[in-house]
Amino acid sequence: MPNPVTDRVRVRRHPERGAYDRATVDSILDEALVCHLGFVHDGQPYVIPTLHARVGDTVYVHGSAASRMLRTLAAGVPVCLTVTIVDGLVLARTAYNQSANYRSAIVLGTARLVDDPDEKLRALEAFTEQLVPGRWAEVRPPSASELKATTVAALPLEECSAKVRSGQPGDSGGDLDYPVWAGVVPLAVRAGKPVPAPDLTAGLEPPAYALDLDAARAARHSAS
Amino acid sequence: MPNPVTDRVRVRRHPERGAYDRATVDSILDEALVCHLGFVHDGQPYVIPTLHARVGDTVYVHGSAASRMLRTLAAGVPVCLTVTIVDGLVLARTAYNQSANYRSAIVLGTARLVDDPDEKLRALEAFTEQLVPGRWAEVRPPSASELKATTVAALPLEECSAKVRSGQPGDSGGDLDYPVWAGVVPLAVRAGKPVPAPDLTAGLEPPAYALDLDAARAARHSAS
Repeated sequence: MPNPVTDRVRVRRHPERGAYDRATVDSILDEALVCHLGFVHDGQPYVIPTLHARVGDTVYVHGSAASRMLRTLAAGVPVCLTVTIVDGLVLARTAYNQSANYRSAIVLGTARLVDDPDEKLRALEAFTEQLVPGRWAEVRPPSASELKATTVAALPLEECSAKVRSGQPGDSGGDLDYPVWAGVVPLAVRAGKPVPAPDLTAGLEPPAYALDLDAARAARHSAS
Repeated sequence: MPNPVTDRVRVRRHPERGAYDRATVDSILDEALVCHLGFVHDGQPYVIPTLHARVGDTVYVHGSAASRMLRTLAAGVPVCLTVTIVDGLVLARTAYNQSANYRSAIVLGTARLVDDPDEKLRALEAFTEQLVPGRWAEVRPPSASELKATTVAALPLEECSAKVRSGQPGDSGGDLDYPVWAGVVPLAVRAGKPVPAPDLTAGLEPPAYALDLDAARAARHSAS
């Protein structure tokens, strides 16, 4: 069921690129490696990159309780959480039509701090699993003091939208004959070969999800 | 020469990750594909992904004069421009130490609209060249009406900082013996095979910078 589309999240520039269904918003949130969280402190906007994870209708961010970001969020101020995935560069024949293909999602709202230990643990699991599916079950779980040292903030997925540009350059008319190659160069984040920790216990081999992280992440995203 | 480090851009969480020299800030700005621009409108922070380009001591963004972002910037409000490059995922033995390697840069300030036609043209060239080095000289230059329809905003690189996390997991003590593989999975944005526009004039081949965009971008960034 789509959320109500407020004026604050309606896509006005290139409205044909706007998407308001949760499936689109969720898939972009889930694939993005980091979010950019915006908040205002002493009249100055700050945009901080941070890891995020979605669980159902909530997006979580986390950090130290001492951080400016989490102290500000704890005060219940309005925030904006944005994620962007760049899918390619659009090489038009004209300077004016140079562009990029991308998928972005924006969430507006007010965050709350997570007090419930079960919800906090589920959120921490989601941070790890969103980035490295399969990892959570293998690592040492958080201790009580580690849980206490970690502050988790929750932002409801109520006021949100997506914006997607895909496809080829927008050249038209006489520009189509301009004598330069035109098209799209696709871009994607790719994982390289795992680099073991120098103090790794002898005999431990990289798990399958580390050897082919791209496949592990793609499988998780197509399943969710 | 380093800019003065204000409290607003000093890295307080993990201060050892902070960097304040312009060479570091510039290299992150120049490599990042998009920025996230934060501003406040009617008390609500917005974080908008947009293309950016640095020319000397200035970062530019652009768009339609009708966009909320540029109308707000034109009013001379405080903004925050942030870029983030994710270099890898840090697979620690403990849930608590899972992390990411990244390089981010943040610029605070007030933008001005660019009126001078020469400065505007140089900025537009930089948007294209930052993403696709070599492209600008080959495409049809902007017409007078296209230049007029494009609004460019300039943000001085005065109050800025970078934050960089690199290297291996931070596990210690007894956790080093926890029986799970630990290390880093490197991540990087990679270009794929160029996809020609369906209406491309027959006989036009992709230029070298499109056939190997990763190499073209790396060469530009190491030269700058």
